[in-house]
This record gives sequence, structure tokens and C-alpha cells, in this order.
Amino acid sequence: MIDYQAPLRDMRFVLYEVFNVADDWARWESLSELVDQETADAILEEGAKLVSKTLSPLYRTGDEQGCHWQDGKVSTPSGFKEAYQLYSEGGWTGLSGNPEYGGMGMPKSLGAQFDEMSCGANLALMLYPSLTSGAALAIDAHASEAIKSLYLPKMYSGEWAGTMCLTEPHSGTDLGIIRTKAIPEDDGSYSLTGTKIFITGGEHDLSDNIVHLVLAKLPGAPAGPKGISLFLVPKVLVNDDGSLTEPNSVSCGSIEHKMGIKGASTCVMNFDGAKGYLVGDLNKGLNCMFTMMNYERLFVGIQGLGSAERSYQNALAYAKDRLQGRAATGVAYPDKEADPLMVHGDIRRTLMNIKALNEGGRAFSTFVGQQLDKAKFGEAYEKQKAAGLVALLTPVAKAFFTDMGLECCVAGQQVLGGHGYIAEWGQEQLVRDVRITQIYEGTNGIQSLDLLGRKIAANEGAYFRLFADEVRVFIGNAENSEFAPALSKALDELEQATEALLKQTADDPNTINAACVEYLQGFAYVAYGWVWAQMAEVAKAQLDSGTDDQDFYQAKVTTARYFYKRQLPKGSALLKAAVSGAEELYGLSNEQF
Amino acid sequence: MIDYQAPLRDMRFVLYEVFNVADDWARWESLSELVDQETADAILEEGAKLVSKTLSPLYRTGDEQGCHWQDGKVSTPSGFKEAYQLYSEGGWTGLSGNPEYGGMGMPKSLGAQFDEMSCGANLALMLYPSLTSGAALAIDAHASEAIKSLYLPKMYSGEWAGTMCLTEPHSGTDLGIIRTKAIPEDDGSYSLTGTKIFITGGEHDLSDNIVHLVLAKLPGAPAGPKGISLFLVPKVLVNDDGSLTEPNSVSCGSIEHKMGIKGASTCVMNFDGAKGYLVGDLNKGLNCMFTMMNYERLFVGIQGLGSAERSYQNALAYAKDRLQGRAATGVAYPDKEADPLMVHGDIRRTLMNIKALNEGGRAFSTFVGQQLDKAKFGEAYEKQKAAGLVALLTPVAKAFFTDMGLECCVAGQQVLGGHGYIAEWGQEQLVRDVRITQIYEGTNGIQSLDLLGRKIAANEGAYFRLFADEVRVFIGNAENSEFAPALSKALDELEQATEALLKQTADDPNTINAACVEYLQGFAYVAYGWVWAQMAEVAKAQLDSGTDDQDFYQAKVTTARYFYKRQLPKGSALLKAAVSGAEELYGLSNEQF
Repeated sequence: MIDYQAPLRDMRFVLYEVFNVADDWARWESLSELVDQETADAILEEGAKLVSKTLSPLYRTGDEQGCHWQDGKVSTPSGFKEAYQLYSEGGWTGLSGNPEYGGMGMPKSLGAQFDEMSCGANLALMLYPSLTSGAALAIDAHASEAIKSLYLPKMYSGEWAGTMCLTEPHSGTDLGIIRTKAIPEDDGSYSLTGTKIFITGGEHDLSDNIVHLVLAKLPGAPAGPKGISLFLVPKVLVNDDGSLTEPNSVSCGSIEHKMGIKGASTCVMNFDGAKGYLVGDLNKGLNCMFTMMNYERLFVGIQGLGSAERSYQNALAYAKDRLQGRAATGVAYPDKEADPLMVHGDIRRTLMNIKALNEGGRAFSTFVGQQLDKAKFGEAYEKQKAAGLVALLTPVAKAFFTDMGLECCVAGQQVLGGHGYIAEWGQEQLVRDVRITQIYEGTNGIQSLDLLGRKIAANEGAYFRLFADEVRVFIGNAENSEFAPALSKALDELEQATEALLKQTADDPNTINAACVEYLQGFAYVAYGWVWAQMAEVAKAQLDSGTDDQDFYQAKVTTARYFYKRQLPKGSALLKAAVSGAEELYGLSNEQF
Repeated sequence: MIDYQAPLRDMRFVLYEVFNVADDWARWESLSELVDQETADAILEEGAKLVSKTLSPLYRTGDEQGCHWQDGKVSTPSGFKEAYQLYSEGGWTGLSGNPEYGGMGMPKSLGAQFDEMSCGANLALMLYPSLTSGAALAIDAHASEAIKSLYLPKMYSGEWAGTMCLTEPHSGTDLGIIRTKAIPEDDGSYSLTGTKIFITGGEHDLSDNIVHLVLAKLPGAPAGPKGISLFLVPKVLVNDDGSLTEPNSVSCGSIEHKMGIKGASTCVMNFDGAKGYLVGDLNKGLNCMFTMMNYERLFVGIQGLGSAERSYQNALAYAKDRLQGRAATGVAYPDKEADPLMVHGDIRRTLMNIKALNEGGRAFSTFVGQQLDKAKFGEAYEKQKAAGLVALLTPVAKAFFTDMGLECCVAGQQVLGGHGYIAEWGQEQLVRDVRITQIYEGTNGIQSLDLLGRKIAANEGAYFRLFADEVRVFIGNAENSEFAPALSKALDELEQATEALLKQTADDPNTINAACVEYLQGFAYVAYGWVWAQMAEVAKAQLDSGTDDQDFYQAKVTTARYFYKRQLPKGSALLKAAVSGAEELYGLSNEQF
């Protein structure tokens, strides 16, 4: 398996040429002091070095060795500790962290690029520091000043890692029925007892301490989701000066044997009267979680994107190298025993599929990152709209990037034929690893329900119209674009499907659940159509102006055309399926299934 | 993971009610003495017992333990030897074998059902005897009488296993460039030298001997595929009375570490002046292989189908049991902490998707099996058409069953959420195991090329018209069917796409390669639409006649409607993509990728 290389040229293209994020940064006072294009480029280049030299080489060995549990301790694969150390020392855990507590305060549009490259290089290893960043985000937003100043600097520096402890054996998606109990103590802390499962990084040997964020219920708390509170439970208790004292009553009972991400420990965590500290208000624990959810969900989506990019790089290298068969148009390399795979139309189609999905996904993730930045750093007039777009588009990004992540890893594997199925080439690991991204942080079914139920039906399409208006404005401005007619038609279909579903759901409450997955995918194809048209228009302008980089921009235009011919039509079929009603789904009794 | 249960009711439905295969059997003299519906039912029931009691329980342990290589010997997982013994003693290896040499001579329409259930129960284990059956088929068709009478009885009884040795390190799909050499010896045998890779069952501890069928070239043989010959190379040399003598110069150099089917040994085989016997004519080795290809390819397709059925059973059991969330229409089980997953529309949609694809696939595989039987046992008037349909539809079955096999295993895994990703529930193994079926026995890209290039373009659509006429006749006979208009439209689209591609390919030789994968999938959706309409019409007739089994037939009609609403539209989008030309695929230089 070749080592991963960050697609820096393409990242700069979407950041600065398509979405002009540097102009935003310059406009916003709180950001303009921290970052400009030059700084951001330096960060991207440093990041690219780190991921290709430090993270990527541990990709396969991490899978081969996996994690090991013994007597409650978990050891990570060899090399992980040193890589984690370098990562931490580079400040990457705090890349988007609050500067008041030692974070670098970088915008998400930039962070999204680093997320993509680091997850593309080594997903399993990246889960440890990224869970820390996520936990830090929730602490920064909701914890007391005392907790923040005690915990955040150590988390941003990677000295202490973080986890999210939500799932219990009987309760995954349905957090309302969790059983972990929190009993108030006289000193203002809480005593937590219960079992959490599927806890990524719940125990490991990478950091001095692990800070668990745990959902639990007080005795007598309201039933369901409204009785859930959030607690910070350190693995080792902490003095006020930040020094470590004695171990807390937290233990790792075992780790899971999984399909992939074997370098990441997935732990059963037992809390046995463990000391914990309330984060946020009592019974508002789910709200605290939601704060970080848009970031985390976009991040998980980007894991799919990074994996797909690695699949592309690996499959492309193989297709250029492997000799097999002859070109349909006649022998291309008469001096060789056979032509390279690249001469074959189906191999090129497979690679173009991945390329079009990856570059479309990268543009879309950058757009969503930009909206997160607008919602956080922007002026009053832009905040609200951006927040609406973030709410709407985050589930699309999470589900579609990861669905396409699997599709692209499987497609890349297919290019390698039998060699894709054996461990040696790394391609089968990509498939096993990326598969989790469709499941965790809310399955893609749950993302789709969130999109159609909470983000569209619940506000009668208000967020949806924000998006549709953006696309309409683009079409209006680009009316001579070769892509405008097809994009306009695709948007019409999406609008009609959305309206139809809003009507259907008034009559049949099962509509949303029955329609949502295909609706989300149909939506995503339209959204990709939009970003592809934007990229193509930027590229055409460059070509018209006689750019030196003809190859790059011409490839953009050609790939956009490919997307419109080959991929956009899938959206139509999906939307047609989505509006077909729930009747047949409930036409069978459980026994007839 | 629950144990696999063969879907016997549904198998009988497609065999006897939809395709009336028992009428064929009664018509054909050579078959009428061997099998009727009663015998076939007894075989299916015995088979169902074997697979659920003997093969299925070894499914997970086979994966956990895998195969082990030491000093050239390969040990299979515990229990495999005993299961292989029971399987052999039951005569299953020779189920379709030639009765003259001890085979049971059963038709493929019946064999296809057993293939599905046995591969659904334990794909890795099934590869050993099924490779034997495949090798026996080639021997029966092409070897000398002496070889046949010496080898076939021992292979049908499972005492000796078989393999197919095609791939070499530098040559997979492109067999024309193989390097294994065969030197004629004075005694009429050949001395074979070379290395073969990816040899399933190349070495193991299940049988007394292993019979390798090896592709090799004589010195001075024509270049490319026309210089390939086929040889039988036993692991242990055999006396004329069938007793074993000394080991041949064949050794297993190592086994591969693979994504799945870990219970099946995948071997590097070294032939070092090994004694071999010619099978068929010199330089006609590929033709001998093609004899068995339609059987093998249908069989590999059915592996995908069997895996998908197991995924369905596993996911359905979980969805009925797991409590999570509440129904969109209100609390369904107030006495429980939450409702079972089955109340949720998206879970039902996922299961309906799998159900519709599996039952459609089962019907289609039975139809193809029936055509194989017609081509083999039938009267003169029906043979030729059946052979044309087999040639046309086999690549569709192989590729589409296995593509949908992965899709359905992934979908089933998604129903289990996080539990689908850990080894405990077996669902992740299904995904890993089924993935190989899209790759081996000709990748699905190669199947698609075969369909559009060799089976359609090469005869200017003659085979295609056989198929289209069958569908048209059905539509004509079922003009009042609720499915006729949509099926007719789908067939129109398929015919138009086929014509368009035949025209395009005259101008651009890259057309076929560029279009074939999406074309095959679009074709398959139409074919499934056809078999679903047939099943629905049979079911409606039963419902009209007041059958006692209302639940079964009503579920058929509802599932047919589901297929037409939700899945058939995908075919349109795929065909649209297929006819979009090769221009963009060749619009980028290799460096621009």
C-alpha cells in the first residue's frame, strides 16, 4: 500500500478559489488576528507532512496488531504512542480549541481539511485525539470556569485524552432509556454507577489521564431524554493545581472485536461509584451533547471522505502499474506484455466515480465548514442563515460522505481485483475501517430522520428554502453555464419531492421514516451538482484567463461533466423512490417478513 | 448470530409454481427417471437439515480460527473435517454429477437451491466441495474415458477434492500471459512447472487427495489465449486401480491473509516438474474452462444470494427483538421500555429492500438454472434458445447477485447498528465473506464486459432479443396486470439503451468498456421486474382461488409492488448513465487523474 498524500492543491482550490474563505476570515475581527491564507497554508503543509510521515506508515501495522486488553489495561499498537506524542506536541488536538485555554482557535473550513487528511492517513489512530477535541468542545461550551481552566489546557495539549460515554448495552440510538445513575454527593460532585459500551478510547496507554463525558440520570429525574445529565468523570482524579491524585472508580471491562478500526480501542466501561462533575445544567445533558453534534457529525462524515481519498490514491497507483489486457482501441504499449489497467474504460469509470464523489464531497464539506464558521465568528446578519444551513446540511454530509466512503473504498478494492481482497495491499482494510462511519455518531438512518423530520418537516421547510434559495441564486448568476439547465431540473425535482413529503406526512406519520434515507441521498446528489457547477465555473474562468495550470482546471471541468452525466441521474431515481409512500412497508405483518 | 434456515417454502414456490420445473423434468427422458417433485422435495429437506445442523454452526468458528499453514501443510478450522465428511457421505458433491460415474445427475434448477442454502450456511466451508464439483464438471466434459473413470467417482464421493489453477502473480483476468510451462514426457504425460496464486482449496486436510486442474502452455505454443492447455495434476499420484502412490511435485508455498472466507484456504501453489495429464485438446484449455464457466459463474452469483438471505434472517431476528425508540404513530408496546425496531419505517424499508432483492434473485437464479437444464436435457427445439439465454443471463446473475449480496449484507449490518460492527453478531463476517464473490470467477467488471461485448454486441443483439421477446410475450399475456405498464416501459428503456450502445460502439470501441457495468445493473433491474411480475401474477391467482396460504401470497404481491415502486426506478438511472458515452473517461490524461 502506498503512503497517503494530502490533496493540498485541491484543498486550496475549494478554500480560496471556490468559497473564498480567506475573505471571511479577514472580515471577522476574532479570526483576522489568528489566521490568513498564508498561515492556513503553512498549517496545511505542516499537517500534510505529519499525516504522510507519521500517521500513514502506522496504518497497516495498527490493523495487524490491534489493541490488547489485559487486567483492565489496554495497549495500543506499536508506534501509536510516539505518533500520538508528535501529534499532541504539534498542537493539533487544540487546532479548533478555544485560545483562552491554549487552543489554536482555527476555523472549521480549515480544520475540515486537516480532518480529511489525518483520517485518510490513519482513521483508527485519529480517533483518540479527535474524541479529545470533541469532548473539549462540549466542556468549553457548557462546563464551569473551574472545570474549563483545569481540564481544557491539558486536553488541547493531548496530555489528557477525552471520550464520550453514551451507549449502554440496551440503549444505543434511544438514549432516553439509559440506566447509568448519578447520586449527588455532599461536596457538590456526583457518584456515577453504570455500564457504557462501544466507548472509543475508553482506555489506552497514550495519555496520562482520560476525561470521560458521561450521560447519566439522577434518581427521580424525568423519564426519557429530558432526564439526562452530563458529567465529567476523570480516569484519575485531579488536584486543583492539575496534578493527578488517585484512580477514580472507572474501569475497562473488555474491548470489542470489530470488523475494522482495530487500532482504536472500543471499550466496555464500568463506573462503580465513580466521582463525576456536572457539566451544564441538570437534565440538560442531551442539549450539551447537541452543541458538539454538528461538529462531530461533520467530522465523522469527513472520515468517510478521507478514506475514499486514500482508496482513490491506492487504486490509481495500482491501475497505472498493473499490466492486464489490451486497450479496446488496439495495443497501447506494444513493448509491454500487456497494457496497464488505465487503458480500460471500466477502470477509468471507476476512478472517475471516486474522483467526482471525493472532489464534490471536499467542496461540500468546505461549504458546511464555512457555514459553521459564519455561525460562530460571523456578523449578526449572516449568523442565523448559516446556522440554519449547518443544521440542514450536517446530516447530509455525515450520511452521504460515509455512504460514498464505503462505495469508494469498495470501488477502489474492485480495481485491485483479487489483490484488493488480501491484506497485503491495504485496500480491504479501508473497506473494513470506513464501514463504522456509517454507523457511529448516529447511524445514517438516524441522520436521514434528522434531516427530513427535525430539519425539514419540523419547521415546514424553512431551512430547506435557505438551501434552495442559495442554489437558485447561483443558477440565476450562472444562467449561461452548461450545467444550469440540469441543475435547475434537479433542484425542481428536489423541491417537488420535499413538498410532496411534507404533504404526505400530514396524512401518514410513517412517511418521514419510510422516505428519509432515499430522500437524503437524492438531496445530496443535488447538492453535489451545485458544488460541481460552482467548481466548473471557477475553473472555466481560469481557463479563459489563460492560467498556467491548464491541466488542473481542465480536469475540473471534465469531471464536472462526468458527474452530471453519470451520477446526478441517480438523484432522480432516489427521489422518486422516496415519495412512493409507506404503504407497502406496513403492508406486511411482522410474521410475513 | 442465529443459525441459518433454508427458505424452503420460497424455493418450492419458484420451482413448481412460477417456473413449473417439474413439468420439464417429466418431459425429458434422461431426467424423468431420476427426479420428480417428490424426490426433489426430499433432497431439499435433507439439504436444509444438513446446512442448518452441520454447516451453519461452524460459520463463526471457521472465521475466528481460519486456516493455518505450516511446512507446506494447511489445517482447516476445527469441525470442518467432520462436516466435510458428512457432506461427502451424503453425496452432495456429486449432486449434479454424471450418473455414469456415480453422480446423482440432478438438474441445475434444483441444484441452484441447494447451492443457495449451503453457501448461505457456510460459504468458506462450501468452497472445498464446490470447487471439486466444478473441476469434475470440466473433467466429465473434456477428459479421456480413462481419466474420467479413475477420477470422477472419487471426486463425486468427496474422497478426493478438486481445484482450478488459473491465476498467476502477474496474470489474473488476462490469462493469455500465463507462464506456467508444460513439457511433454515420453509416457504421454506432461511435466508442469510454474506458480499459481489465489488457489482456493489448493491444500487442506479434508481429503485424501487433491486434483488440480491447471492452465499451462507448451513450449512454442501460440501466444495469448490460443496457446493455453488444461492439465489434471493430482497432489498424490494415482495407480490405475485408484490407489494412491507417491506425492507429486506440487507444494503449497503459503496461504493468503484475506478480508474474509478465512475458513477457506487460498493458496500459492508451486508446480515443480509435477506430473500432469492433458484434459481436452492441446491449446484448447480455455475452451474447456468455458464449459464449466456458466455453471461456476451462476454458482458464484448464488453465493451472493445465499449470503444476502442469511443477512436478512439475522437482521430480521434482531429487528424483532431489539427495543429502541417508539413508533411514529405512537407507542406500540406500552408495557415495554421501548418498541422493537420493526415499528420503524426505515428498518422495514431496509428489510423490504433485502427481501425484494433476495426473492427476485431466487426466482431469476431458478430461471437461469432452468435454462441450463433445457440446454442440457431438453428437446432439440428448446436447446438452442435456452443456450442463448444462459449465455446472456449468466453474467447478469453472477454480477448482480453478488453486487446485491454486498448491498444486502451491508444493509443487514446497518439494522444492527453498532452491534453489526462487532464480531459477536456475525453480521460483519457476512460483509467480509460476501465481498469476494464480486471479485473471483471474473470480476463483476469482466462479467459486464462479457454481457455487453461478447453476449450482445458480438452477435448484434441476437441473444438480447431472445430475452426481450420472452418479456414481451409475458407482457402480452398479462396485459391486465398492474405491473404490465411499468414493465413495458422498463423494457423499452432497456431496448433503447441496447440499440444506442450498439450504435455508439461502431464509432467508439471504448463504448462497451465504459458502459458495461451500469448497463448490466440496469438490465438486471428490468429482469427482476419481469420475474417479480411473474411471481405476483401467480400469487394473485392463488389469492383469487381462495388459497389457505393467504399470508404467503399476499406478501408476494406486496413485495412485488414494493420492488416496482422503490427499486425498478434505479434501472432507469443506470441505463441513462450507461449510454452517456466514453468521452469524459478519456478526457483526462493519466496524470490528470
